[in-house]
Amino acid sequence: MTNPIAQADLIKTFRRVLPAHSILSDAEQTRPYECDSLTTYRQLPRLVVLPENEEQILAVLAICKQYQIPIVPRGAGTGLSGGAMPVPDGIVLSTAKLKKIIRIYPTERVAVVQPGVRNVSVSEAAAHAGLFYAPDPSSQLACTIGGNVAENAGGVHCLKYGLTVHNVLGARVLTIDGEILELGGDALDAPGLDLLSLMIGSEGMLGIVTEITLRLLPKPNVAQVILASFDSVEAAGQAVANIIAAGLIPAALEMMDQTSVRMVEPFVQAGYDQDAKAILLCEADGSSVQVQEEIALMSGVLNDSGARQLRVSYSEQERLKYWSGRKNAFPAAGRISPDYYCVDGTIPRQHLARVLLAITEMEKKYELLCANVFHAGDGNLHPLILFDANQAGAFHKAEMFGAEILELCVELGGSITGEHGVGVEKLNSMCVQFTPEEMQTLLDLKSAFDPKQLLNPGKGIPSLNRCAEYGRMNVSGGMLKFPHLERF
Amino acid sequence: MTNPIAQADLIKTFRRVLPAHSILSDAEQTRPYECDSLTTYRQLPRLVVLPENEEQILAVLAICKQYQIPIVPRGAGTGLSGGAMPVPDGIVLSTAKLKKIIRIYPTERVAVVQPGVRNVSVSEAAAHAGLFYAPDPSSQLACTIGGNVAENAGGVHCLKYGLTVHNVLGARVLTIDGEILELGGDALDAPGLDLLSLMIGSEGMLGIVTEITLRLLPKPNVAQVILASFDSVEAAGQAVANIIAAGLIPAALEMMDQTSVRMVEPFVQAGYDQDAKAILLCEADGSSVQVQEEIALMSGVLNDSGARQLRVSYSEQERLKYWSGRKNAFPAAGRISPDYYCVDGTIPRQHLARVLLAITEMEKKYELLCANVFHAGDGNLHPLILFDANQAGAFHKAEMFGAEILELCVELGGSITGEHGVGVEKLNSMCVQFTPEEMQTLLDLKSAFDPKQLLNPGKGIPSLNRCAEYGRMNVSGGMLKFPHLERF
Repeated sequence: MTNPIAQADLIKTFRRVLPAHSILSDAEQTRPYECDSLTTYRQLPRLVVLPENEEQILAVLAICKQYQIPIVPRGAGTGLSGGAMPVPDGIVLSTAKLKKIIRIYPTERVAVVQPGVRNVSVSEAAAHAGLFYAPDPSSQLACTIGGNVAENAGGVHCLKYGLTVHNVLGARVLTIDGEILELGGDALDAPGLDLLSLMIGSEGMLGIVTEITLRLLPKPNVAQVILASFDSVEAAGQAVANIIAAGLIPAALEMMDQTSVRMVEPFVQAGYDQDAKAILLCEADGSSVQVQEEIALMSGVLNDSGARQLRVSYSEQERLKYWSGRKNAFPAAGRISPDYYCVDGTIPRQHLARVLLAITEMEKKYELLCANVFHAGDGNLHPLILFDANQAGAFHKAEMFGAEILELCVELGGSITGEHGVGVEKLNSMCVQFTPEEMQTLLDLKSAFDPKQLLNPGKGIPSLNRCAEYGRMNVSGGMLKFPHLERF
Repeated sequence: MTNPIAQADLIKTFRRVLPAHSILSDAEQTRPYECDSLTTYRQLPRLVVLPENEEQILAVLAICKQYQIPIVPRGAGTGLSGGAMPVPDGIVLSTAKLKKIIRIYPTERVAVVQPGVRNVSVSEAAAHAGLFYAPDPSSQLACTIGGNVAENAGGVHCLKYGLTVHNVLGARVLTIDGEILELGGDALDAPGLDLLSLMIGSEGMLGIVTEITLRLLPKPNVAQVILASFDSVEAAGQAVANIIAAGLIPAALEMMDQTSVRMVEPFVQAGYDQDAKAILLCEADGSSVQVQEEIALMSGVLNDSGARQLRVSYSEQERLKYWSGRKNAFPAAGRISPDYYCVDGTIPRQHLARVLLAITEMEKKYELLCANVFHAGDGNLHPLILFDANQAGAFHKAEMFGAEILELCVELGGSITGEHGVGVEKLNSMCVQFTPEEMQTLLDLKSAFDPKQLLNPGKGIPSLNRCAEYGRMNVSGGMLKFPHLERF
């Protein structure tokens, strides 16, 4: 059982191992940590600690283990699933002060960084060697590598370059028992079980990452993007399938529906066709001959797929203009609606049009508008459900809407998250994705690292009881994987 | 404790759930299963079972669990680390009869196959859609996808296309408790802990894989290879570094030293320069303009790096001829030496020349010849140590030689296996790679899946006692990670 410690004593205990400025305890100081970017879920932490080195983290872990105090690790707080939301009686362990780029190693094409380094800083630091770090979540100016590892972050270029898990070669991890695990490294492969991949996307439930070895890639000399518009979502969805079937691997392949286009165009003037039912952004990067060839091939496929309009960027300025609409979709949603709820799910890409049409039906059912922005090339959906939190029940309706989209994703062979993680937001959807046996395996693995459930407890993996409860209360589509439960 | 069951009763029990022809019990029938391709380690199994479907596998697992009989899963038996060697009193569970290609899905670029499907068959089945499966271990004509998953197999094209772990999207796994886990799938990412990656390379220690979803890639239109020779291994190693530094990603980048060249050339007449100290094979693939551009850039770098000779393949026939020497290195070793021992380790590629020179020193120390064949681009070494097993102590000397190479790999920041796995061969080397804490984490994970240690026991992860014993007896280079142990 827990060994309760009074707040004043706890602060005193932390003061022995941390500088005073690394401990935040007043509500004014801890308030900024009560949520991540999923602002609808909030909880004040007991304390926030900001250790400056590995030794201090080990000391924090030892204290928390001794007094059985839950720990919520936190990067930049840009997460969208509430993974970094504090838990009652728990502390927040921020890695913000660990922000050294330890080395850039051009011959090996690797960078070794601390978790508090911002995503974009890695590419900036590697630019002198003609290298870059590929995963580029929308929040890349703010989000940190530690958070990217915790959530297995993606981005628009993942179709060609992979997710975080494909671009991390090694990690140094501190366990709740104070052990140091060196996982992976510069080398091609590591022997033994793949603990490194297990750590990536584990949402702070298994350990604290203190050093990360990232794979760098040669920076493409040129990038060009095609902006194509279509008369129907089916035609746009088919064009995506045709590009893939033609053996092309675009650097990015994004889709926006008419709602998102009309939402964003007045705001940024990206040059999008507002009369089209859907637009695609299709990018090629590499050497100039390579890009020239790929743009020609892609243009051919898009034309043959019945594109209404086709525009190719012929300067970096034009390319950035075409992208500005996509990149500003979230702020634009905030401009036309008091609140929005960003869903994150994946589907096999052949079902793109089917899902868009189903979402149109759901808009009527829930009486809420939804703007659709998809990483179409890899089947990762980001429907933005617009609502007004001041209207009673509106947020709950938006959540139900989102959950129904995710159930459809699972039904079509997809998953309930592409890149935002489970956090607290998708605990119920996990019950739709996994069977009780699969969930128990996840819980067993968590316990192998953290038997006392001190690291980010209540996140990422729901209890079997919670799933049973959810099954009794809430399943709309009949996809719940807990077959012994009644359905409503 | 175990509940011993007589052999006749055990056979009778298996007959209830398997057809008679799926149970091999006579020594003549089980003899072919006493080892994999690491033929120096042998053990007759108690029985061999060859189930034909998932239901039968579940029944076998249930029987083995009931009577606590160890199970050694086996693919095609082409493994090189003894991972499929039987254990005393255990059965071998072969997946050879599960050889259906379930579906090829061009729009999603995936293939769903059973574990007994041969590696090369996947690309053959996908060829009609212009797709292929990238990982290509040397044994690809014989080895199966199940074995590739168990060992996280690689191949010459992994530099550009990744290892098995980068090309598997999903797996269906049966646990020792008879649970079915659906891991990953067609979709981009899966929520929860990354059980799929954990399963890949787990050497049959966590579960039995019955279905695998593979990522297919567009088949390149063209491939060309450059054959370059050098006056010193340092120059060849520097050329590899220069190619990487120039931002090029060859489809393959292989290195052979003079010993291997002189060993293989008389055998296959590949056109290799026998006066050179090292040769490189540097391949480009893609569209014809892309390949043309890359071959020109690579040729420039190789010339600037002081290549003695440079030849480019201008036909598919010529390309295959240049590759034939590399592909026949192992058979050629068997031709000039009664026995050979193939080492598998990785290093950061900057240390290529240093490792080759160190191996030359070790040749003198152990009085054995070593032919070096490297996946130079990704720093994966395959030194072939030549010996005669009929000479007393020769195999032991070869093993010591190999272990010293692997210790050097770890010392330089590399690892003790690139693609062959740990099996039984590298249990001692694992003690060099990992600390006791890291090893305990691996053991804990294994126990989370298989608490009774029935799945391939004694493979992959050494006990802490074994490492302690190894530390007392055998450490040559001082790299053992168990610092509390004495060193000799």
